[in-house]
Amino acid sequence: MIESSKATAAKGKLLYGMVGGGEGAFIGDVHRKTAAFDGKCALTAGAFSRDFSATQRTGAALGLDEDRLYPDFETMAREESARENGIDFAVIAAPNYAHYDAAKAFLANGIHVVCEKPLTFTAQQAEDLKQLAAERRLLLCVMYSYSGYPMLHQARAMVRAGEIGDVLMVMGEYPQDWLIEVIEGESRQAAWRTDPAMAGVSNCTGDIGSHIENTAAFVTGLKIKRLLAKLDIVGADRTLDTNSCVLLEFENGASGMYWSSQVAVGNDNALQLRVYGTKGSVEWEQEFPNVMRFTRAGEPTQTLNRGHGYLSPEAASRLPSGHSEGYFEAFSNIYSRFADALLKLKSGAALDDADLDFPNVDDGIEGVKFIHACVESSKNDSQWVTL
Amino acid sequence: MIESSKATAAKGKLLYGMVGGGEGAFIGDVHRKTAAFDGKCALTAGAFSRDFSATQRTGAALGLDEDRLYPDFETMAREESARENGIDFAVIAAPNYAHYDAAKAFLANGIHVVCEKPLTFTAQQAEDLKQLAAERRLLLCVMYSYSGYPMLHQARAMVRAGEIGDVLMVMGEYPQDWLIEVIEGESRQAAWRTDPAMAGVSNCTGDIGSHIENTAAFVTGLKIKRLLAKLDIVGADRTLDTNSCVLLEFENGASGMYWSSQVAVGNDNALQLRVYGTKGSVEWEQEFPNVMRFTRAGEPTQTLNRGHGYLSPEAASRLPSGHSEGYFEAFSNIYSRFADALLKLKSGAALDDADLDFPNVDDGIEGVKFIHACVESSKNDSQWVTL
Amino acid sequence: MIESSKATAAKGKLLYGMVGGGEGAFIGDVHRKTAAFDGKCALTAGAFSRDFSATQRTGAALGLDEDRLYPDFETMAREESARENGIDFAVIAAPNYAHYDAAKAFLANGIHVVCEKPLTFTAQQAEDLKQLAAERRLLLCVMYSYSGYPMLHQARAMVRAGEIGDVLMVMGEYPQDWLIEVIEGESRQAAWRTDPAMAGVSNCTGDIGSHIENTAAFVTGLKIKRLLAKLDIVGADRTLDTNSCVLLEFENGASGMYWSSQVAVGNDNALQLRVYGTKGSVEWEQEFPNVMRFTRAGEPTQTLNRGHGYLSPEAASRLPSGHSEGYFEAFSNIYSRFADALLKLKSGAALDDADLDFPNVDDGIEGVKFIHACVESSKNDSQWVTL
Amino acid sequence: MIESSKATAAKGKLLYGMVGGGEGAFIGDVHRKTAAFDGKCALTAGAFSRDFSATQRTGAALGLDEDRLYPDFETMAREESARENGIDFAVIAAPNYAHYDAAKAFLANGIHVVCEKPLTFTAQQAEDLKQLAAERRLLLCVMYSYSGYPMLHQARAMVRAGEIGDVLMVMGEYPQDWLIEVIEGESRQAAWRTDPAMAGVSNCTGDIGSHIENTAAFVTGLKIKRLLAKLDIVGADRTLDTNSCVLLEFENGASGMYWSSQVAVGNDNALQLRVYGTKGSVEWEQEFPNVMRFTRAGEPTQTLNRGHGYLSPEAASRLPSGHSEGYFEAFSNIYSRFADALLKLKSGAALDDADLDFPNVDDGIEGVKFIHACVESSKNDSQWVTL
Repeated sequence: MIESSKATAAKGKLLYGMVGGGEGAFIGDVHRKTAAFDGKCALTAGAFSRDFSATQRTGAALGLDEDRLYPDFETMAREESARENGIDFAVIAAPNYAHYDAAKAFLANGIHVVCEKPLTFTAQQAEDLKQLAAERRLLLCVMYSYSGYPMLHQARAMVRAGEIGDVLMVMGEYPQDWLIEVIEGESRQAAWRTDPAMAGVSNCTGDIGSHIENTAAFVTGLKIKRLLAKLDIVGADRTLDTNSCVLLEFENGASGMYWSSQVAVGNDNALQLRVYGTKGSVEWEQEFPNVMRFTRAGEPTQTLNRGHGYLSPEAASRLPSGHSEGYFEAFSNIYSRFADALLKLKSGAALDDADLDFPNVDDGIEGVKFIHACVESSKNDSQWVTL
Repeated sequence: MIESSKATAAKGKLLYGMVGGGEGAFIGDVHRKTAAFDGKCALTAGAFSRDFSATQRTGAALGLDEDRLYPDFETMAREESARENGIDFAVIAAPNYAHYDAAKAFLANGIHVVCEKPLTFTAQQAEDLKQLAAERRLLLCVMYSYSGYPMLHQARAMVRAGEIGDVLMVMGEYPQDWLIEVIEGESRQAAWRTDPAMAGVSNCTGDIGSHIENTAAFVTGLKIKRLLAKLDIVGADRTLDTNSCVLLEFENGASGMYWSSQVAVGNDNALQLRVYGTKGSVEWEQEFPNVMRFTRAGEPTQTLNRGHGYLSPEAASRLPSGHSEGYFEAFSNIYSRFADALLKLKSGAALDDADLDFPNVDDGIEGVKFIHACVESSKNDSQWVTL
Repeated sequence: MIESSKATAAKGKLLYGMVGGGEGAFIGDVHRKTAAFDGKCALTAGAFSRDFSATQRTGAALGLDEDRLYPDFETMAREESARENGIDFAVIAAPNYAHYDAAKAFLANGIHVVCEKPLTFTAQQAEDLKQLAAERRLLLCVMYSYSGYPMLHQARAMVRAGEIGDVLMVMGEYPQDWLIEVIEGESRQAAWRTDPAMAGVSNCTGDIGSHIENTAAFVTGLKIKRLLAKLDIVGADRTLDTNSCVLLEFENGASGMYWSSQVAVGNDNALQLRVYGTKGSVEWEQEFPNVMRFTRAGEPTQTLNRGHGYLSPEAASRLPSGHSEGYFEAFSNIYSRFADALLKLKSGAALDDADLDFPNVDDGIEGVKFIHACVESSKNDSQWVTL
Repeated sequence: MIESSKATAAKGKLLYGMVGGGEGAFIGDVHRKTAAFDGKCALTAGAFSRDFSATQRTGAALGLDEDRLYPDFETMAREESARENGIDFAVIAAPNYAHYDAAKAFLANGIHVVCEKPLTFTAQQAEDLKQLAAERRLLLCVMYSYSGYPMLHQARAMVRAGEIGDVLMVMGEYPQDWLIEVIEGESRQAAWRTDPAMAGVSNCTGDIGSHIENTAAFVTGLKIKRLLAKLDIVGADRTLDTNSCVLLEFENGASGMYWSSQVAVGNDNALQLRVYGTKGSVEWEQEFPNVMRFTRAGEPTQTLNRGHGYLSPEAASRLPSGHSEGYFEAFSNIYSRFADALLKLKSGAALDDADLDFPNVDDGIEGVKFIHACVESSKNDSQWVTL
């Protein structure tokens, strides 16, 4: 029997609304599938597009009630806030330019927020959101999705426990090749990411360079002291960077090199992090996320494999070893932790640090500062910029 | 707001019930997450355990209505069949011994079936189910989950299109190491898989050897003419095989070697298939499922990557290349195809072969025959057994 | 200045003569370069071809004195034996059919021998050579060249030391693809290897299957109790095997599967050995010979790297880790050990087992028996053959 | 028979003498084995150490005539030059500080030179040597050994033929970990490399950073326009760099990042070069030198394998594919090309560019300039330095 009732899917679930993620959007569908993965969150409302008829089509396809579809996020924030069974949180999966205003609207209306990265165009905007969330006691998760991979948690646990000693060198890279041809005419994604009005001051560094920054900070906990950068624009008529070289000095004295590119033929999403310390090293690759390599000085390299009993409890995962988890599961892990925290908060319990183990507004602020520092250095002939 | 209504999650979805998959079961949760992944199926009923109080606990945790929980699958089949909004299909995720009776009960009551592999204990039982499903015009999907991986579809497309010429040699292996110690006392999974009353005539060959057989058949389309086998029992007091060597001759004259093991230290679920032909070869590994290797005679080996434009349409997938899909997604692909077929069937349309591109009762029959032939050969000092 | 003197290159070196290895031969040059590598051996005499004018051309190109060039190996054996400064040992690098007669001729004349594998056509011939060498107190090295790789010595040391416990399963394979097309018309190598008169009862099994057998025996020390085989002939008008599947039972109860092929597209010399025991496993690949993998049950897989301090002394090598050693060096290692033993023997000292750590006549005998058992089993519809 | 004559090993060979490479030296033995590998060069003279008794011991062990052993390179240059059968060329394998004086001495005495890199301490010295060699019409080979690897020749051929289009980005790295502990007390190599008097202005950049520079120049042919660097000193009491980050701009507008390190745990000699262009990319790793990866935009990555017929003639090598060649063979390739050129020159023929396909004084000059630019930039807080 196909059930025809319009009743919502919510029994005991958190309700959420989505901004962006309409027809043809890739990341919106990822948010929806992964928010639903553990059965903790139910999509209930949406302002999926600036074109309301498109939003209505998307809403119908997703089985949403018509009165939970909105022409814009401001309306959604206001009206959902006023409903008895209004959404618990909003997911902002629109292009970068909308992040700040949308996040602000929901927070101002008492609604928790999950926002795509980069959080905002400017660091000041990000600080504003932080203050607003703090005042309203609201959760603000910034979707640095890779930090959901269990083996990155393993790497973090090992580095924080001193297994590699003091960090000396951080090597990060994130090459892609999808912009090697000028495809802005055919690809909506390419069009907005290369458009300063939509993407902000940077394309490559802002999108994927920022993932290196977050991944390295996640694993090492190191603060960047200063950096210098050379941002290249490859591709006719482009005005934002598509290749990005960054040299870094961390507060503990370690050095770092981050390379991101959208024009490195042969690469898809080849994010890689390697951290070298006085006693050992860890290495991880996003395209093979179920394993990481660990070497103690003078010993053979070990390949650690997700799901095994020898891992840290922090690396807990869903499947036994040998059945790979991927991008959806990493995303789901973040939603699961966010939902657990929100459910606990709603139950009236106090949240501690362990409850808040998902990327937050501080990560968002660091990300925006990193992007701006890279752009500033590059404009200034690769002079050092202190953070 | 947390929604407290008990209304079901079903708007436009197929409803299903589950047999097995109760507390502590690994694969039941995989079935639930992946049946739900694309929003086409809603869990509505369950007989999760032979202990009804356990079923009630599982049902409550999953938010099912109490009157959709059943003490056994016979009751579930009978009562759901009688309900106006009864389940569309049943998922059988119980240990092997229950497959036949449960599948028969649902088919007999007009309910479609998704069943774990191996389908039954005997080939005759599998033939019975085939006949029953045909008579009642019901779908019967056998969950050979690996056939859901997009890059195996790519391999199949290439082999079937003649890109490697005539197949000469098939190398398949599936080593694990989880039974290197005798853990039957601690692991429910280990206990039933090594118990002939629960698992049938074989443990290793029946569980993972059978996956090699199905994967090879899926990619090559070749029929086994005859085989010989040597099944080893490693581990004190065990009576079923934990290591399995099979030598094969296919109807087209090709040879094959299949090795499966549960005592091969250093392996998790290292299913690998390599097919060599007169013009080329394909290779695929389950633990790195997003890539496959292809070599034309005299040319460099190519690494094909899921999500790329150069792939066959059959290899269509969910994420762009470089963001890995894993085991959950492979499973979900099968559920998605099964659900599409069932929805189309319910709409009154006729199904063609392309609609039925999921593992079915014929695959189940071949699997059971393969297991029995291996056991028979091994008992007969590795004499050839003709299929 | 280019020195024009004809004086030999021998100061303190062992002198040797070569049978085979004339114009166009691949392996003869390898023998010459690697016998010379450590400066312990000097090529002094030759019967490089059945065509004496070809031998003279080769000898001239190699700078040999004309009176050390011979029309056939019998003459070389007789005359060198009679010379005051005659050769210390002979290298037999001719096709298989010549091995027995040539080895016998040199041994009978008191000259030590290094012979390519397989040692002889029949096991009885190999036993004859063993007896002759023993009677004359002569060294007989059979060039199973892969046993010269340091990381195989590491694997042997670990297995023999019990690091993987009792061996349960041995997986060996050696796929190539050079005979996927019928190239006997253009390739002298292909012509003789596929010709029973030159190669003996087997092509593929005799050439590369035999390397699996030797490598597995080298690492594990296990004796084969019985085996069954299916040998396939791929390629029009061929009469010897080009694809070979062998199933084995070892005396300790372990099982094994050996696959060798000359028609597996995408493979060059992909010899791989994997040994699984009750406590761990080792894996090694000939094409990446500087590393091996080792796993203890329940622990991460380790990649051991040639040249590191954590290795066994048996794995001693020439270069620091990270500068790869290859096929020439493996070959050279065997020549170096053979030369050391021979120098010690000539010094009058007694040789102990450690001095004789190179593949010898017993390895040669095992190899010939293995080949014949495979051929016999295959002819007998894959019945077990006891060794 | 062991030959006791003292006659030299030279029949038709080039004679050479060696500076450095005495007891305990690693690279000296590599030079000797690889100069001898193809039978074109014979070691005839030596000043292996500043301690003449050590030179005498080394000379005796190598079987050299006593009157060809010298207390210093000046004496060797002068006396060998005066001999009728004096050496054809000198190999300088001493620490860096001796390169200039030794090379100058031999060139001034009309003797060709093979010198370890870096060629000299200063660019002016290197220019002096270039002028001197030109005046005397002498060959000067600088041993950038990695350029002897066949698959780097393949990469060069492909890049130069435009297969990857215009180069956009060059990624080079060379991590090691042998100096993670302060081992200067136990390791002669560590002692001199970290000592400015012996090694010059740089340790890490001068040793292995310089290999990145040469390898990238070899493959791409690009000239560096400017660079900036951050050189780190890790390890108590050290005064020279052990970790080196370089950001580059090439004359064609491409960017580059070079990282070398001696303190990156888990790395031996992990030189890697990746070159990205407008149409494709090439990648190569020194530790797996028999393969390279090539990707055309939009196509699957290909793994090219040494020895195959699909390669460029420039990638000609010694062994068939699948039998790996390593570091010794790469070195030997350079000696072989150098010897061929020298033999041709001695025969009176004119040399063309193809004859001179080994690393020469211009490569040496570029290398020294690169090192100095890195040091200068680092001292100047990572300001750009124009070359």
